[in-house]
This record gives sequence, structure tokens and C-alpha cells, in this order.
Amino acid sequence: MRTLKFGLIGTGYMGKSHAIALHSVAAVFPLSVVVECEMLADITAQQAAVKAKEMGFSRATGKWHELVNDNEVDVVDICAPNGLHKDIALAAIKARKHVYCEKPLALNAVDSLQMALSAEEAGVKTMVGFNYIKNPATQLAKQIIDSGEIGDIVHFRGTHNEDYLADASVPMNWRLKRATAGAGALADLGSHIINVAQFLVGAISAVNGDLNTVIKERSTAGSVIDKESVENDDQAHAMLRFNSGAIGTIEASRVAWGRKMGLTYEVTGSKGSIVFDQEHLAEIQLYTSDQKTSRQGFKRILIGPEHPDYQNFCASAGHGVGYNDQKIIEVRDLIEGISRDQAIWPDFRAGYEVALIIDAIEESYRLGQWVHV
Amino acid sequence: MRTLKFGLIGTGYMGKSHAIALHSVAAVFPLSVVVECEMLADITAQQAAVKAKEMGFSRATGKWHELVNDNEVDVVDICAPNGLHKDIALAAIKARKHVYCEKPLALNAVDSLQMALSAEEAGVKTMVGFNYIKNPATQLAKQIIDSGEIGDIVHFRGTHNEDYLADASVPMNWRLKRATAGAGALADLGSHIINVAQFLVGAISAVNGDLNTVIKERSTAGSVIDKESVENDDQAHAMLRFNSGAIGTIEASRVAWGRKMGLTYEVTGSKGSIVFDQEHLAEIQLYTSDQKTSRQGFKRILIGPEHPDYQNFCASAGHGVGYNDQKIIEVRDLIEGISRDQAIWPDFRAGYEVALIIDAIEESYRLGQWVHV
Amino acid sequence: MRTLKFGLIGTGYMGKSHAIALHSVAAVFPLSVVVECEMLADITAQQAAVKAKEMGFSRATGKWHELVNDNEVDVVDICAPNGLHKDIALAAIKARKHVYCEKPLALNAVDSLQMALSAEEAGVKTMVGFNYIKNPATQLAKQIIDSGEIGDIVHFRGTHNEDYLADASVPMNWRLKRATAGAGALADLGSHIINVAQFLVGAISAVNGDLNTVIKERSTAGSVIDKESVENDDQAHAMLRFNSGAIGTIEASRVAWGRKMGLTYEVTGSKGSIVFDQEHLAEIQLYTSDQKTSRQGFKRILIGPEHPDYQNFCASAGHGVGYNDQKIIEVRDLIEGISRDQAIWPDFRAGYEVALIIDAIEESYRLGQWVHV
Amino acid sequence: MRTLKFGLIGTGYMGKSHAIALHSVAAVFPLSVVVECEMLADITAQQAAVKAKEMGFSRATGKWHELVNDNEVDVVDICAPNGLHKDIALAAIKARKHVYCEKPLALNAVDSLQMALSAEEAGVKTMVGFNYIKNPATQLAKQIIDSGEIGDIVHFRGTHNEDYLADASVPMNWRLKRATAGAGALADLGSHIINVAQFLVGAISAVNGDLNTVIKERSTAGSVIDKESVENDDQAHAMLRFNSGAIGTIEASRVAWGRKMGLTYEVTGSKGSIVFDQEHLAEIQLYTSDQKTSRQGFKRILIGPEHPDYQNFCASAGHGVGYNDQKIIEVRDLIEGISRDQAIWPDFRAGYEVALIIDAIEESYRLGQWVHV
Ligand SMILES: NC(=O)C1=CN([C@@H]2O[C@H](COP(=O)(O)OP(=O)(O)OC[C@H]3O[C@@H](n4cnc5c(N)ncnc54)[C@H](O)[C@@H]3O)[C@@H](O)[C@H]2O)C=CC1
Ligand SMILES: NC(=O)C1=CN([C@@H]2O[C@H](COP(=O)(O)OP(=O)(O)OC[C@H]3O[C@@H](n4cnc5c(N)ncnc54)[C@H](O)[C@@H]3O)[C@@H](O)[C@H]2O)C=CC1
Ligand SMILES: NC(=O)C1=CN([C@@H]2O[C@H](COP(=O)(O)OP(=O)(O)OC[C@H]3O[C@@H](n4cnc5c(N)ncnc54)[C@H](O)[C@@H]3O)[C@@H](O)[C@H]2O)C=CC1
Ligand SMILES: NC(=O)C1=CN([C@@H]2O[C@H](COP(=O)(O)OP(=O)(O)OC[C@H]3O[C@@H](n4cnc5c(N)ncnc54)[C@H](O)[C@@H]3O)[C@@H](O)[C@H]2O)C=CC1
Repeated sequence: MRTLKFGLIGTGYMGKSHAIALHSVAAVFPLSVVVECEMLADITAQQAAVKAKEMGFSRATGKWHELVNDNEVDVVDICAPNGLHKDIALAAIKARKHVYCEKPLALNAVDSLQMALSAEEAGVKTMVGFNYIKNPATQLAKQIIDSGEIGDIVHFRGTHNEDYLADASVPMNWRLKRATAGAGALADLGSHIINVAQFLVGAISAVNGDLNTVIKERSTAGSVIDKESVENDDQAHAMLRFNSGAIGTIEASRVAWGRKMGLTYEVTGSKGSIVFDQEHLAEIQLYTSDQKTSRQGFKRILIGPEHPDYQNFCASAGHGVGYNDQKIIEVRDLIEGISRDQAIWPDFRAGYEVALIIDAIEESYRLGQWVHV
Repeated sequence: MRTLKFGLIGTGYMGKSHAIALHSVAAVFPLSVVVECEMLADITAQQAAVKAKEMGFSRATGKWHELVNDNEVDVVDICAPNGLHKDIALAAIKARKHVYCEKPLALNAVDSLQMALSAEEAGVKTMVGFNYIKNPATQLAKQIIDSGEIGDIVHFRGTHNEDYLADASVPMNWRLKRATAGAGALADLGSHIINVAQFLVGAISAVNGDLNTVIKERSTAGSVIDKESVENDDQAHAMLRFNSGAIGTIEASRVAWGRKMGLTYEVTGSKGSIVFDQEHLAEIQLYTSDQKTSRQGFKRILIGPEHPDYQNFCASAGHGVGYNDQKIIEVRDLIEGISRDQAIWPDFRAGYEVALIIDAIEESYRLGQWVHV
Repeated sequence: MRTLKFGLIGTGYMGKSHAIALHSVAAVFPLSVVVECEMLADITAQQAAVKAKEMGFSRATGKWHELVNDNEVDVVDICAPNGLHKDIALAAIKARKHVYCEKPLALNAVDSLQMALSAEEAGVKTMVGFNYIKNPATQLAKQIIDSGEIGDIVHFRGTHNEDYLADASVPMNWRLKRATAGAGALADLGSHIINVAQFLVGAISAVNGDLNTVIKERSTAGSVIDKESVENDDQAHAMLRFNSGAIGTIEASRVAWGRKMGLTYEVTGSKGSIVFDQEHLAEIQLYTSDQKTSRQGFKRILIGPEHPDYQNFCASAGHGVGYNDQKIIEVRDLIEGISRDQAIWPDFRAGYEVALIIDAIEESYRLGQWVHV
Repeated sequence: MRTLKFGLIGTGYMGKSHAIALHSVAAVFPLSVVVECEMLADITAQQAAVKAKEMGFSRATGKWHELVNDNEVDVVDICAPNGLHKDIALAAIKARKHVYCEKPLALNAVDSLQMALSAEEAGVKTMVGFNYIKNPATQLAKQIIDSGEIGDIVHFRGTHNEDYLADASVPMNWRLKRATAGAGALADLGSHIINVAQFLVGAISAVNGDLNTVIKERSTAGSVIDKESVENDDQAHAMLRFNSGAIGTIEASRVAWGRKMGLTYEVTGSKGSIVFDQEHLAEIQLYTSDQKTSRQGFKRILIGPEHPDYQNFCASAGHGVGYNDQKIIEVRDLIEGISRDQAIWPDFRAGYEVALIIDAIEESYRLGQWVHV
């Protein structure tokens, strides 16, 4: 079997999760290639070396350029802050590497488009880490919608709310600055729910949004006196119009006390509805209009072997998948896409389509009116 | 004890509910007056007579004018379709009756204001039937917010979704025509959630909404061939900005398959959150930021004797209240407001404030931009 | 229309609830008689007079004997502590009154049988206040089971857990003494879930139980020094075998921290299951084995107009009923049973059947083995 | 770093799950040894070879004896049917291998004790695959109980119900025969919940149970005509008494329609309660008695980095763990126990303690009375 060698950049939250997925995927899914964890880059050579050992990578570097241009590396996996995605990805594409990049793809739509076009021109495969659409439950929702079981979609309501910055005493970090993060909750969390909306309901034609920064200043990390401005939104919501005629809303917040994984959606169709909550990630609620009135209700479907990509994790229904299992499915899609030269979704183009919506929401906020995409 | 004599107009869904509340209230709450079900008006004298017997009213009439001007009637209780509220209420006020009117107060804000001004000038008491804010659970939410326990409110998301018109084969009825109903789901259901938003978060300063009619034609009632246009929205949503600086969204739908009583809200503050779902009407979920990280979570508080207005229904917590119990509380507030000459809320002015928001949402939809209220 | 005059004994928790139901029932259900709240008895004449005014009864007495023998009283309604049920009921039956008695029927099965036999001999109607089986949701469960939709019942698990005595500092009261209460949690709460088990699954043929008193002493009410022994169980559970071949368990506790209304059951059949929780009293969860594997799940059915006895409360599904609404249905069944001379369930015989199981569980506990009923 | 080489026997449901865990564990947890998937045994050499390739094992054999006695193998991992556990484990112990064995440890307590004694004598490490107690949520429950936060435990109710054999047309398989499985649902699922009860509440002193075979015959696998007897229980429940004085019940069923992963428990203490449901495996409900009455309720705690063993999977709370993540924790405990020569739990002795309870429940069923353990 051919081998596919990964070079991972960034060893924080996502770096760890990608490493777990890369090491686990072959045990879960039959693959057509052998995956190797070849090289790891971090902010210094020393940290990279430590992490490489910890995370099971063969080699390490303090310079991502080295990794990107290393002859052994087949796939560049970007788990660095948003502001670095573009430079790393363009360099990787130039070096004819496939690129696996965390979300949001870049700081804005223009950059995202440049990345997508470069990759398409170079003929390399790309994937963006919107893992929630890889959840078997959400794949099931998609199957149900595509099958027509709930009819034509008429409404979508999605949220991705968390509370990781609700505490005003949390100091400044890269997520709060435009240069390193782009938009705030809208890009960090909103990008996921926009991607879900596009996955389940299709293209969005117009948006009209509102943004708000609740905690306007944060203490400089490490300092007790200094304060810095928060440069992007803490909470965002927008009304959406889809090409199909459906309407909807999305909402993202990083200051929503109590929400730890508040990615939820409710999709209403002309013949039924689906309700989902990522805090109970292994189930959906399904309502169909063909039920006898006296027996009608939402049905709680626990994910099982009959549903997409579950069987390989577990032979019994309802036993549950976890966060990292989504990344395993994502990595499988990437690997098989590369190995078999098949289309991958969500690729950089899909990442660009999300970025377009983010930018349009920001513009609609500035203009106070609808923006057509 | 003084007696307070009610004249009820309309004997449909709400007429029945009001009758139950009027007959039950004295057994639940200690009152300072004796309530009497004096007179009932319906569309014909015959139907009024039948219903009066059924619903325990002493006298009946086929003409609401007679009821409104009857010397014995102290309070006119309007449970007729929206389009009649204004004429009946103005006539009742002219006759110096107190007026209890179902929501929405009128077809639009202009009419609503006229009603409120007339009542204020005449010095009669008024109440609008926004019963959901009388639910002990929602009163508890209000208490918690007012106490500062969840800090300054930063976000509100409210919905009132039902599916009573999701089936496209349901024929035309008064709720679907502008002359009899005004707005669609926005007025019928949205009025409730707007009222809840104002109750919990305060005055709304600007709105920006979207409306949509999913089922554009319905068969004429009784006919197999004829079709008529639906004249108002099946689903509506809007972004809100509150005077306080909080932002939010509301949503109303009458075509949301599976939702039977989908009045929900999530109120996020700088120190905590409250989540509520009227399908589980006797509880709220409360999250406060003062919890130890390893023991943090939403707490499900079942309504009990320590909470507003529950004790009189039941001595034990968690035993539950039902829809009509809200109406009993509403009627108690009305009766005691009249008897003790105290302020009542929500009165016609509050009904007008809801109507203002409905009209502004419709205008924002036409203009495609924010409308300041 | 004929009138039916009620004499109520006891004005505590249940007295109030009965009074609400008696005053409300005619507004909810069409009745074939006029209900009158004729007389009220409490422990002193003074308290009775105060409560009669408060609760809308025409006359009052400090001696229940007077009420029981009053010529105007048609129905004696017993809301006094368990230890008084037998004497009052036998006196009432002797006076040829119909008797409505709170649960548990008496202190033991022998007394209960005597009461049932007297009533049957005298030809008076009786009812025991097991209101939970009047809940529309539980009536729906019964309908589903009777229809065969979930096949032959193979298992039943029921609980009735509360925490009203979990706090060890709550002082002694009548519920904790054999002479006034009989068994402890087993009689107070267990009687309800035994009645539910018999309602849904049929007669019980053998039991094997365990009892336990967690808090063995309580302070004498009003004293800071004196302590008294708790004379009955704080928590009880038992295995059941039904005539039908089904097996099951029940559990009752008054020290189950956090449970406010923990009456729950899960009924498993050869073709499906029903799950119920009284803290969400207006819904059941239904699973049927005929579902496509990839769409199988428990369905949450919100109670609506198509279900037993809901329509009269509300025209829309999912709007909810409360605790007192169950008592309204119970009172309707009693009134119509008397007025139309129809069988009533649960009558004193049904109360005796519950008492038999309670006694048998206590005996099985003493013997450490199965007891056949 | 030292290496630890695993030999896996059985490649069905559990074999796959163990393989995933062995391949993933080093990416999740820092380990003090290198894990190698050395050898795999299955029922034929051919199947073993195919599976070894699929599941990433270096060598394969059709004879488990070869694996057990292979010099390279350090740990024998038994994922074969229950009836084989004893022979394989004793052979492995004789060969001085550490043994990782799926639950239930053996067909009965006598065999289990022999296995535990052999291992103890030989000084090899053992572990039994009761993975549910490795769930971070259940580890948190244990922490809370041990900390005294809910006081002295007074009651435990546990279930492990599934519906994998509820369909009467599922043919005969090894789980239904005494020689290959031992007890039925009681051993297959009940063993888990007994283990949980012992983990959370401590040693059990007496049991009193009931057993029942709902579907008495099943068709011979592959045949349309032949039927065979089911030799063990489809559903079982028992009352428990713990050494501590707490009482409780457990329940196991393989015919509980609708339950896919129905491992649940409710632990009541003198100062609070914990409620858990494995279908929502990443959370517990906690109630403590120190709450203000008007703010009391069960708190839903989503598992996060502050809780046992979660941080290594994910840096954010509420993102969820899956079934296989429990196995990863289990394998980590095994590996580190071996590598650092530390005590492992649950080991074969713990497996024996579960077997004792299973046998005692069966005996209590035969005798119809309590059996002391
Ligand atoms: N798909 C998902 O659910 C999630 C995606 N993300 C995305 O993953 C990316 C990384 O986020 P986190 O892991 O949370 O951040 P983090 O702050 O935990 O980790 C960032 C890592 O990048 C490294 N890094 C920074 N500058 C670097 C440089 N010049 N060269 C090499 N390495 C460098 C840091 O040393 C650190 O290891 C972001 O784009 C974020 O939006 C983050 C969390 C969840
Ligand atoms: N607070 C709440 O939760 C609810 C409020 N409503 C409100 O209650 C009002 C009535 O609605 P429903 O009871 O659902 O309608 P409905 O259609 O069930 O009943 C309307 C009643 O008005 C009577 N009516 C019509 N024209 C009349 C006339 N000229 N004179 C006298 N009676 C006349 C009809 O005969 C009928 O008895 C509406 O304003 C509606 O928005 C309705 C349902 C719930
Ligand atoms: N169906 C249900 O869900 C419930 C049923 N119950 C049952 O209702 C009955 C009463 O219980 P609660 O109302 O909770 O008790 P409580 O202690 O609140 O009230 C008892 C009432 O009986 C009165 N009473 C006592 N001795 C009397 C006498 N000699 N003559 C006249 N009145 C006397 C007391 O003054 C008091 O008004 C009990 O049998 C209890 O088991 C209680 C609560 C719920
Ligand atoms: N911890 C847990 O949650 C679970 C534990 N188990 C336990 O795992 C064990 C295996 O169960 P499953 O994997 O469900 O069974 P299974 O029937 O799916 O797999 C059994 C495997 O053992 C192999 N096998 C049978 N005889 C063999 C022999 N003589 N030599 C070598 N291999 C042989 C079979 O070929 C098959 O690969 C059982 O003890 C069961 O109780 C099963 C499921 C869940």
C-alpha cells in the first residue's frame, strides 16, 4: 500500500485532535493508503521536538516553511491560528502539497478565494476542518433531507454558542484580534453553523446581520494593569435567505453562559422537521407529518450501525461517538479523497463560500440592511 | 363583598378558557370581590344561549352591543377574532366598562394606541390576554433577572412556533386574512414572544425582520374547488435591539411541523443564563457563572410553592400547572387590579407596545433595513 | 338539573385541591348534575368556618360526624389523614352517602376490605383519590396498551419518589406514625404507583419487597429537645409478578433528594415500550417495533385534543395540563358515576387491591421471601 | 521506552473496539511504554490473517494456544465468547502473560475465583472490560460520592437494558446458551451495572432477584424450521443490600424495546443525588441539598477538562466522548498498571466479585428469598 505522509503545523487544541485522528483512523476505517505522521512544526524548534515525541511524529521543526517544503511531506495539516492559514496554505500549494486546513479558512473572503483558486489550479486536494458536518447524526439529517422525507425546507435556525469568553477576566488572546482571527464569534463559531446551513439547506443568497462586542476590553495576557481592545464580535446573529426560497437565522456567541457546545439546528420542511443539539451529538429528533394525529411526536433517533459512518466505530446503536470521532471521519474523507482522487467536501471552495457569508454579514451590519451574496 | 360581573364575547378556543378561569379563580386565590359570569355574546342569539348554559353564564345575546351596554356588566371580556377587538373595546370603554381583551390587541399599532388612549382617558382598567407571562416559571425568570442574578442581559432569543397551519390542506380561516387578523404568525404567535421579550428584557428600540408565506393559497372553507390567497405571513423572524444595549432575535411560525407549543426563550446575561420551553411549562433552566468549574451546569428548577403564584395551586413543588392555570392568574390580576384600583400589566398600553413592534417588523421587511421604534 | 351536594372533611393540601376541582369541573366538562359545595368539616368549628368562606362552602362544622349525617350532604369527601378514613367512611356509608376518599384507602388491607364491602352492600358509590391514573397521558398509555400496539407486556418499572422528608431536620408529623398513616413511603407514594401498575398491567400475583427507614428519629413538632421514633419506611421497593406473566419492580421514597414529583414508569411489551415521567406530565414516550431500523426511536407524544379528556381543557395540543386538572377529571368521573349510576374506578375495591399489595410487601419484607397475593 | 506487545483473541464487536483503543491510546494519553499490536487469533487461520491486516496486527494465528504461548506476546487480550475466557486466561497466566479479558469474567463465580487466584499467584496483571466505569462522567460520579458531597448513600437504582434480542425472529446465538454464555441478560448486561453499583456504592451483602425468559425458543441459525431453547434469562432484576446499609435495585434486559444503551443509575445520598444515563454519556445530573429552596434543582454537568480523563481527549467542555474513548481509558489503565506495576481495577478479583452477585441472584431466584453474599 502507498503511504501518505502528514506534516502538522500547530500543536494546540486542534493539533492534538488532528494527531489523535491521524493515529486512529486506520484502526476504524479500512484505508487504501498507509498514513504516516511524518513531521511536526511549532513556534520553536524545541517545542516542536517535545510535541513530536508526545504526539507520535517522526520529525520536528520550528519553521513551518521547512515542513511545507519537505520532500517527504505529502499533506500539510494547518492547525495554527487563522491569521497564518493563508501564507502556509499558499506556500504548501506552491510546493504541490495537499492541504488540510482548520476553519475558518482565512481572515476574509478575498484571501479564501485566492487560496481556493491556487489549490484548484495546482490540482492539489484540500479540506477545511468543519468537523460537525461529519458527525453521523448530521450526516443522517442530510440523508433525511435529501430523501425528501421532510419535504421542501422552509426554515432553518442554527446556533453555535459557547461561553469560553463569557468571563470578562479572561485575558486577551489571538481570537480577539482582527489580524490573527478575522471576525470574532462569527468566524470562530459562526463559520461552523454557516457550513452546516449550506450543507443541509444549500446556498445562501442574502444575509442581514447584527454584531455586538459585550466585553470591549480585556487585560493584556500576563499583565495586571494593561488593557487592550477586543477587535471583533462576541455575539453575532443574522437572518438568511436561501436560493431555494427557505429563510432562516443563525447565531454565534462566545459569551453565552452555560453553553459548552451549543451547536444546534432546527430544520423545518413542508412535511416534517429535524432538531439537533451537538451537546447530545449522537442523536437527532425527527418529526414527520405522515403520523396519525394521536400518535404524532418528535422521534429521538439514536445513531446506530444503519447510519452514515457509525458501524466502523461500533456494532451497536446508541453507544455514542465523541468529538474526536468526527475528526476521524474527516481525516478518512481527506485521505480517501487524495488516495482515490475523488472530490472532497468541504474543500477550500466550500471554505470560501463560508467566508463570503461571514463577510456579507459584517457588511450588512455596517449598512443596516440586506446584502446579496 | 362586592361583585364583579363579566360579559364574555366569543365562545371558541379562548372563550372556553376564559370561562374556566372565571369559574375557578375564586377557589384558587383569595379574592376581594365575588366574580359573576353575567352575560355571554356570540354570533347568533341561539348559539349564545346554548353556550351560556354550557359555560355557566346567566344571560345570553346574539349582539355584542347589547352586552357591552348592559347595565349589569362590569367587565367586557373580548374573545372574538382580532378584527373585532377595536370596535368592541371602544364601545365598552365608552360604556365605562373595564375591558379584558385577547391578544393581539388590534390589527395594528394605530388602532391599538387609540384603544389604549381611550381607556386611559375613561379611567377604566384594561388587560390583554398575554397569558404566558403569567406562567409561574416565566414570573420566576423575571424575578431572577430583576434580582441581578444573571447580571446585565446581553442576548435574548425567543420563539413561538406551532404547526397548526403546516398542513397545506387546512382551509382558509379568519387568521389568514388581514381584515380579520392583521399580521399572520407574527401577530398571532409573535405577539406573545414580543410581550415576553419586553417583560424580561425591557423596551425594544429597533427591529429588522423577515416574513414569508409558505402556503400561498388555501381552499375556501367548505369548497373543494375554490382557492383563496393567504394574506399574511406563515413564518416571521426578526433581529431586535433593546434600549438596554442587549440584542436578540424572535421567531414565529404557524407551519413549524412538530411544534405544538413552541414558545421558548434563552436569556443570556453577563453572569448567567435562563432557558425556558413552554412545552415543559413548569420549569426553567438556570445557569450562573459563580459555580465551581467542575460542578457547573444548567440547573433545572421545577416550579414550587416558593415561586410566584404556585402555592395557591398546589402545596408541593414539581406537581405542575397547566395552560388554564395561567389564565387563572391573569384573571386574578385583572380582578384585583379592578377591585383595588391597582395598575394592571399587560394593559392596553402594553398591547400597543407589542403592536408597535409588529408593525415595525413588517415595515423593516418592506424596507429591507432596521426600523427604529 | 339535579344537584349533588358535597361535604368536604379536611382542608389541608388535598382539601384545597378537591375544592378547586369541585368549583372548576362544571366549567370544563358538561355535567348531568349541578355540583354544590355544601358543607365543610375541619378539626375545630372555627377553622372550619374560616376555611368554608375561603374555599367557597356554604356551611361549616368542627365535627365530621355532623357533616356525615347532614341531610343535605350527598357525597362525603374525605381529605383527612389516613387514620381517619375508615371511621369517617363507614359512618358515611351507614348514612347512605356516596364516599370520595383520599388515598391510601385505610391503614391496612383488612380495614380497606371492610370499607369496600360496606359500600358495596349499601349500594353507594365510592372513589379513591388516585389521581395520577386520570392524567390524560397515563390514560393514553392505557389506551395504547389495551390496543395491543406494544404487544404483550413483559416488564413494568414504576417509581414514586419525592424528597419531602429527605431533610432530617423536618419534625415529626402524622405521616410518620403507624396509627395515623399506616405504612410510610410505601403507603403514601407507593400506593399511587401500585395503582398505576394495576391500571396498566393488571392484577399482581406475588410480591417480594424491601423496606428501610433512613431517618430513624425526628424532633417532636414544636420541641427543640424531644425526639420521636419514625414508625414506618422512608424508602421501599419490591419485585412484582403479574397474573399475565409480566414481571416488574416498584419503588417509593420520601427521602429521594431532588425528586419533587418522581412518579415514573416504563412499560415494556413484546412489540414496544412506553416511558412516562410525571414531572413532564403532559407527554409520553412511545417506541414501537414496527419502525424501519434507520428511523427507529422513542417518540415524544405531547397530549392533545385527540387524547382522553384533554379537549375539554384546551383546543390545542401541547399546551399542558396541571396537577389540579387530574383532580377535575377524577371529580368528573365520580359525579357522572353517581349521576348516571355507572361503575367508578378506582373505587373502594380498587383501593383495597392496592392495600393488599402494600400489606403483602410488608409481609415479604418480614419473611424475606415472595408473598402470593 | 519499553514496548508492550498485545495478542488479541477474537475479532468481533469487542475485538474491533479493543484494536481501535490499542492503536489510539498513545495519541491520547502520555504512556510510559510503547504499545504494539503483535498478534491476533481468530477461529481460523485465514480469518485471523484477514483480520490482522484489517486491524493492524503484525502476525496472525487460527489457534489461540499459539498466541497465548508466543514469546513476543506480553498481554493476552480476550475478546472471545464468555465460555472461552477461563481456558484462555488460565493458559495465558500459566505462560506468565498479563491478561485483559472481556466481561463477564467467566461462566460463574467458581471459575472466576480460580482465574483470579491463578493470576494473583502468578503475579500477572489482569483487567476485566467493564468499560462503563471508565467513562469520565461515571468517574466524576464516583469522585462526588467519595468527596461526601451527597452524604451517605441510601439508595441505588441501576439498569442496563437493551433491545438487541427483543425481536423474537433473531436466531439462536452463543449468548443464549449456558455453555457459551452462562447467565443471560444478567451476565451480559447485568454484570456491567453490578460493577457500577460496586464501584459507586461498595460491596453488596445480600441479593434477592427475579429472572424471566420472554422468548423461550429461537430458530437455529441458518435454519427455517429448527428451533432451539433459550437457556438463560432475557430479563432480570434484583433487590440489593449493601454493606454500608444502603439498599437498591438493579435491572438488566436484552428485550427492552427502544433501549439501545440503557445503562442508567440514580444514586441517592443523605445530602443529594446523582442521575446518569449512558445514552447521554458525557453528562451527569447532580442535586445537592444545600441549595436555596427557590433555586433548587438537578444540575446537568457536561463533562469537561476539569473532570477525570477528559482533558486528554479535548480541551473544551461539553464536546463529548464516545464509546471507544472509554476503552481507550481502560487500556491506558491496563498499560500503566503493567508498566508501573500498579494496582489495576477492575481486575480479575473484581470480575469475581461481580460473578458472585450474578450467581447469588440466580440462587435467590431459585430459592425465592434473600441470599447473603
Ligand atoms: N474544528 C474545530 O472545531 C476547531 C477549530 N479550531 C481552529 O484551529 C486553529 C487552531 O486553533 P487552536 O488549536 O484552538 O489554537 P491554539 O492556540 O490552541 O493552538 C495554536 C497552535 O499554533 C501554534 N503556532 C502559532 N504560531 C505558529 C507559527 N508561526 N508556526 C507554527 N506554529 C504556530 C501554537 O504554538 C499552537 O501550538 C484555528 O484556526 C481555530 O479556528 C480550533 C478549535 C476547534
Ligand atoms: N392567549 C392565547 O394564548 C390565545 C389567544 N387567542 C386570541 O383569542 C381571540 C379568539 O380566538 P379563538 O378563540 O382562537 O377563535 P375562535 O375562532 O375559536 O372563536 C372566536 C369566537 O368569536 C365568536 N365571534 C365571531 N364573530 C363574532 C361577533 N360578531 N360577535 C360575537 N362573537 C363573535 C365566534 O362565534 C367564536 O365563538 C383571538 O383574538 C385570538 O388571537 C386565541 C388562542 C390562544
Ligand atoms: N392524591 C394525592 O396526590 C394526595 C393525597 N393525599 C392524601 O390526602 C389525605 C390528607 O392529606 P393532606 O391533605 O396532605 O394532609 P394535611 O395534613 O395537609 O391536611 C389534613 C387535614 O385534615 C384535617 N383533619 C385532621 N383531623 C381531623 C378531624 N378529626 N376532623 C376533621 N378534619 C381533620 C386537618 O385539620 C387538615 O385540614 C391523606 O390521606 C393523604 O394521603 C395527600 C397529598 C396528595
Ligand atoms: N465491554 C462491553 O461493553 C462488551 C463486552 N463484550 C464481551 O466481549 C466478548 C466477545 O463478545 P463480542 O465481541 O460481542 O462477540 P462476537 O461474537 O462479535 O465476537 C466473538 C469473536 O470471538 C471469535 N472466536 C470464537 N471462538 C474462538 C476461538 N475458539 N478462538 C479464537 N477466536 C474465537 C469469533 O470468531 C469472533 O471474532 C464477550 O465476552 C462479551 O460478553 C461484548 C460486547 C460489549
